Amino acid sequence: MTEPLETLSIADLGTGLRNGSLTSAKITEHCLSRIAELDPALNAFITVTGDRAMQDAAKADRELADGTDRGPMHGIPYGLKDIYDTAGIRTTCHSKLREDVIPATDSVCAEKLAQAGGVLLGKLSTHEFAFGGPSFDLPFPPARNPWNRDHGPGGSSSGSGAAVAMGMMRTAMGSDTGGSIRGPAAYCGVIGIKPTYGLVSRRGVFPLSYTMDHCGPLSKTVEDAAITLQAVAGYDAIDPACADMPVPDFRASLNAGVKGMKIGLLRSFYADAEGMAPESSAAIDAAAETLRSLGAEVEDVQGASPFTQYNSCGRVILLAEAYAIHEEDLKTRPLDFGQLTMERIMLGAYISAADLVQAQRLRRELSQEVNSIFLKQYDVLLAPSSMTPAPRIDAPQKGFPLAWPMQTMPFNVTGNPAMSIPIGFSDSGLPLSMQIVGGYFDEATVFRVGQAYEAATQWHLKWPEPALVEAA
Amino acid sequence: MTEPLETLSIADLGTGLRNGSLTSAKITEHCLSRIAELDPALNAFITVTGDRAMQDAAKADRELADGTDRGPMHGIPYGLKDIYDTAGIRTTCHSKLREDVIPATDSVCAEKLAQAGGVLLGKLSTHEFAFGGPSFDLPFPPARNPWNRDHGPGGSSSGSGAAVAMGMMRTAMGSDTGGSIRGPAAYCGVIGIKPTYGLVSRRGVFPLSYTMDHCGPLSKTVEDAAITLQAVAGYDAIDPACADMPVPDFRASLNAGVKGMKIGLLRSFYADAEGMAPESSAAIDAAAETLRSLGAEVEDVQGASPFTQYNSCGRVILLAEAYAIHEEDLKTRPLDFGQLTMERIMLGAYISAADLVQAQRLRRELSQEVNSIFLKQYDVLLAPSSMTPAPRIDAPQKGFPLAWPMQTMPFNVTGNPAMSIPIGFSDSGLPLSMQIVGGYFDEATVFRVGQAYEAATQWHLKWPEPALVEAA
Repeated sequence: MTEPLETLSIADLGTGLRNGSLTSAKITEHCLSRIAELDPALNAFITVTGDRAMQDAAKADRELADGTDRGPMHGIPYGLKDIYDTAGIRTTCHSKLREDVIPATDSVCAEKLAQAGGVLLGKLSTHEFAFGGPSFDLPFPPARNPWNRDHGPGGSSSGSGAAVAMGMMRTAMGSDTGGSIRGPAAYCGVIGIKPTYGLVSRRGVFPLSYTMDHCGPLSKTVEDAAITLQAVAGYDAIDPACADMPVPDFRASLNAGVKGMKIGLLRSFYADAEGMAPESSAAIDAAAETLRSLGAEVEDVQGASPFTQYNSCGRVILLAEAYAIHEEDLKTRPLDFGQLTMERIMLGAYISAADLVQAQRLRRELSQEVNSIFLKQYDVLLAPSSMTPAPRIDAPQKGFPLAWPMQTMPFNVTGNPAMSIPIGFSDSGLPLSMQIVGGYFDEATVFRVGQAYEAATQWHLKWPEPALVEAA
Repeated sequence: MTEPLETLSIADLGTGLRNGSLTSAKITEHCLSRIAELDPALNAFITVTGDRAMQDAAKADRELADGTDRGPMHGIPYGLKDIYDTAGIRTTCHSKLREDVIPATDSVCAEKLAQAGGVLLGKLSTHEFAFGGPSFDLPFPPARNPWNRDHGPGGSSSGSGAAVAMGMMRTAMGSDTGGSIRGPAAYCGVIGIKPTYGLVSRRGVFPLSYTMDHCGPLSKTVEDAAITLQAVAGYDAIDPACADMPVPDFRASLNAGVKGMKIGLLRSFYADAEGMAPESSAAIDAAAETLRSLGAEVEDVQGASPFTQYNSCGRVILLAEAYAIHEEDLKTRPLDFGQLTMERIMLGAYISAADLVQAQRLRRELSQEVNSIFLKQYDVLLAPSSMTPAPRIDAPQKGFPLAWPMQTMPFNVTGNPAMSIPIGFSDSGLPLSMQIVGGYFDEATVFRVGQAYEAATQWHLKWPEPALVEAA
C-alpha cells in the first residue's frame, strides 16, 4: 500500500484487512497519529480513547485471523459524538453539567458498532447538549473547520465533521435535531445522513427533542456512510420512536446510477431567501445539471409550503422539548450552562401547550405534503443544506434558529431521510453542499443518487491541507 | 312477535327481518313512537330525523326483499351523538357556536353505518363540545337519566346513554376522551365500549383531544355493541391516529366463556379513594365472584401506578389539546360558550409546552405499565367505571376532572379497549357498573368476558319504568 491510509475507503480498508496487506492495528495507529498531530488545532476530540482503540484493533485482528468476520466495520476506526453513552468512558455533552459523567452502559449505537467489530477512537466535540455553540465559555473549546480554522465546522456534530474531513477517521456518529449532522457535513465537506425517524435507536444518546432527534453517521464517502448506517440501524423496543421493520440493504442499489429517475428540486425554499449565497445557488444548479447529464430528470417542485413554515414548526417543537428536558437544571443551576445554550433553551419556557399542539398538527400536514405529494412525483428531492458556506466561528449567533442559514429543519419535521453531500467549493475555499431527500425508510435510493453524483464529480478526492492546520 | 320490540337484540331483530316476521319500517316506527312518547322528559335527542329514518327503513326493506344483505346492521335503527357530522343534517355539538351548522359530508362512522344499512333516528344530546355539562345555559337542555330524572345520565355521550337505556334504540354512537362513552353507559345501565385508539376513524367527529378521542358505541347488550363496533371499525388514511391493520371478528369468541382466564382487578385504583361508594365496591367484588364462579381466576393487580397519576396525565393532555382547538373562539366569542365549558377549557391556557411534553412521556410509560406488565399477566383487567352511581343533575361541577368520580381516564391515556358493563343497582335504584379492559385491538376478549358475565347475571333484562319518565 502506497497511498496514505486516510484516503482508503472503509471497503478498501476491509479488503486490505482480509487479504493480509493491512491490520486494524496499523490503521488505528495511523488514525491516532493523525489525531495527535492535527487535532490540537481542530479540537475535534473531547476524549481520545487510544488504549481502548488499540485493544479493539488487536481483538479485530485476532478475530479476522481466526476466521471470525463481523462484516464491513470489523477493524475499522470510528468516533462518537460526545452525547453517545459509552460504558466506562466519560460522556460530557460538551457541558460543565456532565463533565464527570461516566455512564455504566453503552448507548445502543455504541453497542452495535462494538458488535460490528469497530474500533472506538474517542468522543467528539459537539455544541453543548447538541444545541448551544460554537461557544468559548464551556469546559472544552469548540471544534474548528479543517478548511479554515477561523470558520466553524458547523454544529452540533462539530467534532464528527471536522475529524472525518481531516482524515482522522473515515466515519463518525453524529445526531441531528434541526440539521446537526447535515450542517457539519456541509461545512466540512463530507457526507452526513439523517436517516428516517425511527430507523436508528436513540437509547443512551442525550436527547434534545424527542420528536426530532435522529442518530446517523458523518462519513467521507457515500459508501462509507451506508456501511456505518447499516451497522447501527435496527429496531429497539425501548426507544418509543423506533419502527419495528426489517432493515434493508443500504448498498443494494449503489452503482445503479440515476438514469430515468425523477428528481424534484425544492427551489422555492431558497429562491427568494434573503440569506442565499449566489455561489450556493449556482452550485445547486450545477449539481442538477450533472444529475441530468447522468440521465435523471430534474425539475423544480411546485406548490411547497414556505420554508419558513417548516422551520417555525420545527423550532416550536425543538424549543418546547429541549426546555422540558433541561427545565430542572435551568431552574437549579442555570450558571453551569454556557450562555448561548441557556439563552436558546430558555426560549422554550415561553411556549404554550396549545402552540405545541398546533405545531405537532402542522408537522403531520407538512409530512403529508412531502410524502403524499412530492415523493409520489419524485424519487428524491434536492434542497440546500446551508444557504452559505461555513460562517466564521466568531460570527454573532443571534436569532437562532430563524436567522440560521441552514435549510435542514424541514426533514427533522417530516422525518424523511436526508443526506448532505459536497457539491464544490466557494471562492474562499470552503465546501458547498446540497441535501438529497428520500421517502421513509428508503435510504438506499438516497445513497444511490448520492453515489452516482459523487462518482461523477469526485469532490471527495480533495482534502484540506494539513499544513494550514499545523501552522495554526 | 309478542314481546315489546325494544327488548329484541339487534341479532333477534335481524332474524325477524330475514324471516319476514319484521320489517325495518315496523321497527323504526316503534322507535320513533317511543321517542315521541318518552323523549320530552329525557331530552336524549337534539334532532329527530324521522323522515330520513323512514326512508332508510324503506330502502332496507326493499334491499332485503331483493336479496341484498348488508349484514347485521341492515335495517337496524341507531342514533349519533351530535358531534358526528351528518351530510345535510345539522350537527350542533350541543353549542350555540354551531347551532346552525349543516355539514356537507358525513363523518366516516355515519357513512359506514349508512353503508351497513343502518337507519338513522337522529342526533343525540351531549355536553357542549363533548366537554361542558350538564349545563342549563345552552340552546338545548341536558339529557336526563331514565332511571331517575333528577340525576344526570353521565356525559358527554348523554343522549346516547339515555336513549339506549330507555329503549328508543338498541345502539348509538358516542365518543370518549376521558370516559364520555363509559360514563353514560355506567350511569344509564347499558354497555359502552371505548375501543382501542386507532381502531375507529374520528374523521368528521368534532375533536376534543387528538391524543385521547375515541369513537365507539353505547348499546343495550354486549352483542349489540360488538355488532355496532364491527360496522364502524377500520382504517382511514386521513385520521392520523388510525392503525392500518385488519379488523378482527368481534363476535368470534362470544359464548366461549371465561373458564381458565386470568383476570386482574385494579383494586389499588379505588381501595383508598375518598369518593368510592361502598355499594360500588361491593358490586365489583360480587362481579369478581361471579366471574370466579364461571371458572376465571380473579386477583388484585399489584404495583400499579396511582390512579391520580393516570388521571393527571390525561387531564393535562386533554385540557391542552381542547384549549388549542377552541383557542380562537374563546378569544373572539367567549360568551357564546356555556359557562361550564368556558371555565373548563380555559384551564388549558395555563399549561406550558414543557408540561405537555412531560405528560406525553408519562403517557407512554403508563401505557407500557398496562400493556407490558399487567396485560402480560392477565387476559383482561377490571376497574370501576365510576366510583358512585349517577350524581344528581344539579350537583356542583367544581374541580373537573380531579374531583370527578370516574375511573375511566387511565384507558384514554393508554389507548386500551375498555368497556363499561352494568353490575347491579344501588339502593337508590341507579345502575352500578365496572370496566373490562383488554389488550390493544383485542376487543374480542373484552366482549367475550362481558358477554359471559352478562349471560350469568342478566342485568340487561331490567328496564327503567316508562311510567316514571312519563309522569315527570
